[in-house]
Amino acid sequence: MGDVPPTHPRYASLMARKLLTEAASEGMLAESALIAHGRGEAFDYLLGERTCDAARKAIGEVAARLLSAERPIISVNGNTVALAGPQVLACAAVLNCPVEVNIYYRTPERMKALLSALELQREEAIILYPELSQQIVVVPILGASPDGRIPNLDGPRANCHSDGILSADVILVPLEDGDRCEALVGMGKTVCAIDLNPLSRTARKATITIVDELTRCLPLLIDDLRGGTRIPSEKWDNERNLHDMVSEMLRVLDDSS
Amino acid sequence: MGDVPPTHPRYASLMARKLLTEAASEGMLAESALIAHGRGEAFDYLLGERTCDAARKAIGEVAARLLSAERPIISVNGNTVALAGPQVLACAAVLNCPVEVNIYYRTPERMKALLSALELQREEAIILYPELSQQIVVVPILGASPDGRIPNLDGPRANCHSDGILSADVILVPLEDGDRCEALVGMGKTVCAIDLNPLSRTARKATITIVDELTRCLPLLIDDLRGGTRIPSEKWDNERNLHDMVSEMLRVLDDSS
Repeated sequence: MGDVPPTHPRYASLMARKLLTEAASEGMLAESALIAHGRGEAFDYLLGERTCDAARKAIGEVAARLLSAERPIISVNGNTVALAGPQVLACAAVLNCPVEVNIYYRTPERMKALLSALELQREEAIILYPELSQQIVVVPILGASPDGRIPNLDGPRANCHSDGILSADVILVPLEDGDRCEALVGMGKTVCAIDLNPLSRTARKATITIVDELTRCLPLLIDDLRGGTRIPSEKWDNERNLHDMVSEMLRVLDDSS
Repeated sequence: MGDVPPTHPRYASLMARKLLTEAASEGMLAESALIAHGRGEAFDYLLGERTCDAARKAIGEVAARLLSAERPIISVNGNTVALAGPQVLACAAVLNCPVEVNIYYRTPERMKALLSALELQREEAIILYPELSQQIVVVPILGASPDGRIPNLDGPRANCHSDGILSADVILVPLEDGDRCEALVGMGKTVCAIDLNPLSRTARKATITIVDELTRCLPLLIDDLRGGTRIPSEKWDNERNLHDMVSEMLRVLDDSS
């Protein structure tokens, strides 16, 4: 995998796999994480592995919501840290908000591995975004000592920080689980999800869903966030946006056959 | 996972994941195996997780080709053994043909793990198909000492048995890689593939492609094989069948949105 040249047509996809299999061997991922990634790959294939217009619109809307939030936060799981930890830290740096590790299959070992990985990724984030270095070094990384719970969720997956997810008004949750997405919406939060499956429960339940590949959309989101204050839409029609994404997939599938 | 009741709407899918993650922990799978399974899950989702009419037709055609073959063989990889080793042995028992382990990322450890797993799966196959027990115990399991090579393929992935894959006229290859599928077709063999992605290179290159989930289609194939001699179509139009499968996915995707 190390020999794949950046000009390879499937370079981004192969690099994502490399990052994930490395993370798996470092104990950062649950057993089902690689399977979930594969599902995403298939949907991305149906998008022609590019950011569609409807997704670009959702990215802009998510930037506007995060910029106008009082207490924004970014909730990350294992796949997000493995694929895009530095880019998440850059988003948090622009927003001056915390990143909270909040995983479905919570074990002390996985939490420790993910928190350490994020600390190390600060350096990589600074290399990618040197002009944000002062903010990147002070991004609070939460998750180690949760003192609150997301209501209407059973088990350790509900654990969170009271000064993090629990009190946030706008939450960016890449690659979220459907149950938790629903519980966060139920708390009255604006939930911004990133999910390649436009038919998933997460995609349908979130306030705004970016149907795009994580490592492709985060740099665009960072651009939008750095563009400064934007006004959120009076009425974002998420269902309509998801419908546009499905139409795009239908077009690609029809053209390929 | 052990607590999932068989009545759960996603029981089959969750059991498949369980079998694969167990196989991964036993060293039977390459790193990319779980990702590949996830891609399949997404395409199966687009099929409504059921065997479509076009797939049922392909299963019948594959049965006819295997039954009329002079030297049929079943080539298996890690995911196939993990998901459906016993059913593969039952197919081989009806056909009185060998099963050959032939993997892309060939290492001595993985080969050993897969060959041992298949030996143990004979017992499970006998429990599932007691009336085939006499044939199941004598199914030759090849792969340990390859003495031939598939032409036009580099590296250890080309290694095979001269009295197995090399001399077979009809080969059933569930979950095959595109390169190898093409090389086998290039050898003049009738290649029967099982692949959930109707747009994959394997699906397009194979002589007959069953676009269906492995554990769902094998019992149907076994039924057809046990039904006895069938006459293969004069001219099987695989492209047409794949087109019908894509149409089915378009329908499901359109209905879901």
